[in-house]
Amino acid sequence: MQLGLSVSDSDVSSFTPLVVLELADDTKAEAITWLLNRIRDKQKNGGDGEGFLSDAECQYIIKHELDTLRAKNEEHVPGYPKVKLYPGKSVVRRLQSKGVLVQYFPLHNKEDLKRLSFSWYKKIKLSFQPLDDIRHYFGEGLALYFGFLEYFTFALVPMALIGIPYYLFDWEDYDKYVLFAVFNLVWSTVFLEVWKRCSATFAYGWGTLSRKKAFEEPRAGFHGALGFNPITGREEPVYPSSKRQLRIYLVSVPFVLLCLYLSFYVMMVYFDMENWAISVYNENPNFGTGILLFVPSIIYAVVIEIMNLLYRYAAEFLTNWGEPEILLFSCSSFNNSYFNYCFFFFFCFQFNFVNCFASLFYIAFVMQDMVLLRQSLATLLITSQILNQVMEAFLPYWLQRRRNKKVHKRMRRVMGDKELPLLEQVQLETEMNTYLGTFDDYLEQFLLFGYVSLFSCVYPLAAVLVVLNNITEVYSDAFKMCHVFKRPFSEPAANIGVWQLAFETMSIIAVVTNCALIGLSSQVKAYFPESETQMILIVVAIEHVLLAFKFILAFVIPDVPKDIQVKLAKLEFDSLEALKKRVSTHLYMCTYLQHANRKCDHLYDRPCQKVLHC
Amino acid sequence: MQLGLSVSDSDVSSFTPLVVLELADDTKAEAITWLLNRIRDKQKNGGDGEGFLSDAECQYIIKHELDTLRAKNEEHVPGYPKVKLYPGKSVVRRLQSKGVLVQYFPLHNKEDLKRLSFSWYKKIKLSFQPLDDIRHYFGEGLALYFGFLEYFTFALVPMALIGIPYYLFDWEDYDKYVLFAVFNLVWSTVFLEVWKRCSATFAYGWGTLSRKKAFEEPRAGFHGALGFNPITGREEPVYPSSKRQLRIYLVSVPFVLLCLYLSFYVMMVYFDMENWAISVYNENPNFGTGILLFVPSIIYAVVIEIMNLLYRYAAEFLTNWGEPEILLFSCSSFNNSYFNYCFFFFFCFQFNFVNCFASLFYIAFVMQDMVLLRQSLATLLITSQILNQVMEAFLPYWLQRRRNKKVHKRMRRVMGDKELPLLEQVQLETEMNTYLGTFDDYLEQFLLFGYVSLFSCVYPLAAVLVVLNNITEVYSDAFKMCHVFKRPFSEPAANIGVWQLAFETMSIIAVVTNCALIGLSSQVKAYFPESETQMILIVVAIEHVLLAFKFILAFVIPDVPKDIQVKLAKLEFDSLEALKKRVSTHLYMCTYLQHANRKCDHLYDRPCQKVLHC
Repeated sequence: MQLGLSVSDSDVSSFTPLVVLELADDTKAEAITWLLNRIRDKQKNGGDGEGFLSDAECQYIIKHELDTLRAKNEEHVPGYPKVKLYPGKSVVRRLQSKGVLVQYFPLHNKEDLKRLSFSWYKKIKLSFQPLDDIRHYFGEGLALYFGFLEYFTFALVPMALIGIPYYLFDWEDYDKYVLFAVFNLVWSTVFLEVWKRCSATFAYGWGTLSRKKAFEEPRAGFHGALGFNPITGREEPVYPSSKRQLRIYLVSVPFVLLCLYLSFYVMMVYFDMENWAISVYNENPNFGTGILLFVPSIIYAVVIEIMNLLYRYAAEFLTNWGEPEILLFSCSSFNNSYFNYCFFFFFCFQFNFVNCFASLFYIAFVMQDMVLLRQSLATLLITSQILNQVMEAFLPYWLQRRRNKKVHKRMRRVMGDKELPLLEQVQLETEMNTYLGTFDDYLEQFLLFGYVSLFSCVYPLAAVLVVLNNITEVYSDAFKMCHVFKRPFSEPAANIGVWQLAFETMSIIAVVTNCALIGLSSQVKAYFPESETQMILIVVAIEHVLLAFKFILAFVIPDVPKDIQVKLAKLEFDSLEALKKRVSTHLYMCTYLQHANRKCDHLYDRPCQKVLHC
Repeated sequence: MQLGLSVSDSDVSSFTPLVVLELADDTKAEAITWLLNRIRDKQKNGGDGEGFLSDAECQYIIKHELDTLRAKNEEHVPGYPKVKLYPGKSVVRRLQSKGVLVQYFPLHNKEDLKRLSFSWYKKIKLSFQPLDDIRHYFGEGLALYFGFLEYFTFALVPMALIGIPYYLFDWEDYDKYVLFAVFNLVWSTVFLEVWKRCSATFAYGWGTLSRKKAFEEPRAGFHGALGFNPITGREEPVYPSSKRQLRIYLVSVPFVLLCLYLSFYVMMVYFDMENWAISVYNENPNFGTGILLFVPSIIYAVVIEIMNLLYRYAAEFLTNWGEPEILLFSCSSFNNSYFNYCFFFFFCFQFNFVNCFASLFYIAFVMQDMVLLRQSLATLLITSQILNQVMEAFLPYWLQRRRNKKVHKRMRRVMGDKELPLLEQVQLETEMNTYLGTFDDYLEQFLLFGYVSLFSCVYPLAAVLVVLNNITEVYSDAFKMCHVFKRPFSEPAANIGVWQLAFETMSIIAVVTNCALIGLSSQVKAYFPESETQMILIVVAIEHVLLAFKFILAFVIPDVPKDIQVKLAKLEFDSLEALKKRVSTHLYMCTYLQHANRKCDHLYDRPCQKVLHC
């Protein structure tokens, strides 16, 4: 990398760098000059919000500016006659695809990071996470993830507390799980309803609750034939929708079926191994063969993790196939990336679900072997937790340390003993891995939620294990955000988005599964000794009532707490009153100022709470 | 009635009267002067939208003006020392409750009405209803009802067409209804999804689609202790919420249980009568006793209609009990009437559902007698349709004609031969009945939808009967709106509101019911001769898959058609662009102009489509 900071070293101390653009080693000087002029050119039109915005917000705005930097009349990048441009082409995208611009990322603020990491995970004491500070440093999207993680962990505590005595005293009495299944049912419904209200409270505090989507320009990473955007009327690269749909139906569907087949095949191999281990143990029962009993489950758990990883890459590949676009997992309602995101999401969702839960469903409802179910669940849960923690934080950290040392040495060799903290920091962070968004973190929590809500009645310790996992998860995730990965661009968010839907779907599946488990229990069967049909009909009727109750509950509990509803309404009323006072010919004004607020939201990602009082 | 038009007769021809306020016969002159001054006073602040607004919209604005007319410093109504006022008290409400103001209603426009009724129902030919004209004359709420009626009727045609051959050829083969049940399942889901899109298309065309609720003043009819509104900070009559809830739980719940008990009791009496009729027929089977077989069903149908009517009054009474408020069935999210409306809605909904369908469910699933089910369904459907048409249109019309003649005679007696068409029109319309809103009309359609989607597989002619009923319903409803009732105040609406939810609930119940009917059919039972348990499990599994499919379908099909999404986004984008050009210091402006659009919506009930191009 060229140490291409365009400010002299003496200037370095006088400004706080926010975002780094890494250009290729041999970038032509004229290209650099042109790019800087174009960026400055663009900035002249906007205003700066000195002091008014947090670092994370400034970085988000810079990212937006860079992403929407489009070629005007340039035919090619100055100095690179082969790197062609046409009007409307994303400059950043073209530079990236041709390898001139290697990457761009926001820089850590060492002071803030130190303060944040100290209050977040460096002191070990019982306290909530500093979510407001996290939001200030990393943006709302990440803060909401950590808020959810904390909420989920706390919500599991009652279940864990009930689970321990259950496990200790009723452990061998396989039939006493009916009560626990009923508890699971109620818990999983209430859990999600209360979270919606918590999430609204967070988002209100951060000013993103009533945020509306701005008219996003086509994504920086997007290229294709030029067409007219029906909304803006501008010429823009457009990807033909019919082509994409054809692609999906013709290629993705067979691929999905193939993958599902593979999942089931692996499951069957696991059952064969299981049978083999049991037969070996039965022939010669000793300590060694006793341990052998757990080996198939552990191997299966490891294979599942690997398959999940492979499927994730496959999903990413399939989503981007035909459009060389970097998937950044951001939603927006009017461009193609939303479609892609949903496609990717359901792809991953479905595979992970089948992968992790297919064997458990098979054991529970086809084999009806509750002992094996318990053992399999425990092994899967523990193995995947250990693997996850290692893969997610410790392995990257170890690699990171090795790289850091190398960078440090190289810097010393090049610079001698001169103190250049900023340059070294840039060098160090350039080498860090990129955080790919909260997708993987939510997915992990989603699978844990599945284990707990679906099957924890047969293995009450599941909740305890998940609580323990999540406590370490908070620390390891905090650590990885602060020290393992590059600082991510902040992403404004009003809620956890499509994950809310995913968790709700899981909780519906949980109702059905728990009812079926109740129906299978010999405790319930004992009540209907003569008529199995009657028992099934009663269980099905109860299940329907529970599902209906769940929907009514979701409908009756308001998603936004009353006091915040009132605050939002008051805010709206106040603006209306202010309007009445100031504007007399409001009919005309209201036409073209209608979306003043939108503009505001778009730039500063908050409604007018702040603005109103300044 | 005093002929208290405050304009001289010569003026009458020069203006189009919109709304009539009927004052008591002996109203003091000073009270009239005061009221007129207060109304004019209020109007000075607003502007008139001559030509820009339709009659219906002007009437809606006048109603809003009247409803929000509140006392200032007057201690009592001039001329009426006993009719006390306090600051903030609704003037219209006080005048109404003390009998000074008898009623106020919008006046028909004879010219427009003639044109409308000609294009609507006077020519009998195959064509769609003139929904735009209906909306122009009666407002969006009613136009949406007629749009829904038309859509529902057309949607039933394929089912009716399949039903006729089914009925003719398989009529006696009770087991061949499986295919029809599957068709019902798919139909009821697709029906509602497509309607959402139709409704969005209508509402977009009428400019109400993206309408937001304004900050409504407390309803005119509302009075109670004064308190502070947390949103506006104004002193307003507030009804303590805890008191209302206590009232509901202590009084309404026992009452509801009592009513349900009564419904079931009547049902049991019906079954006794049915058994008696069958025994009489069996003893002596001839034509007379053959007809006797249908008598219990017919009596039961009539009793159901009467009970529905009684419950409706009970619901209205319970809803308003403790707060002497006229229920006008308008929703608004931040005042108490919304709560009331929902309470009233679920009350009526529940009773009508239990009343109409309890006996059918009992016959289908407890008695499992498909012949009786078919006979009972047919009698219920036909009797209730005939009763409805008579009660809804023909009886009021007959009463109306009698009154009209009386009024005409009286006018001739008082006025001699002077031609005073306006005064006579006012006199005639004053005597007309008041249309109580679309509630009863939607309820009727809802029950018909229930008959068709729940049980039409055992009686395929149901759809045919409903189509026939709805064709006459269009004519009788159109006739009653134009000639039987007073013209109603127009009510802006973006969709059919809580009825969408009601219809969707019914379609979910339909899935469950149809699956159960399939499970009961001997055709299906024949496939599983040895194991009933297996059959039940398979039917339950299929039902779950169908329900899941239904939810996925509802999630995947966008509620607003793509082209309208694009148009709305374009509108928003255009305002943003206009804003960019005009306003430079947008940050400040956007604060207090944020809700300019709201104000606009509030007055003219449409977003800026029109305004933008004027």
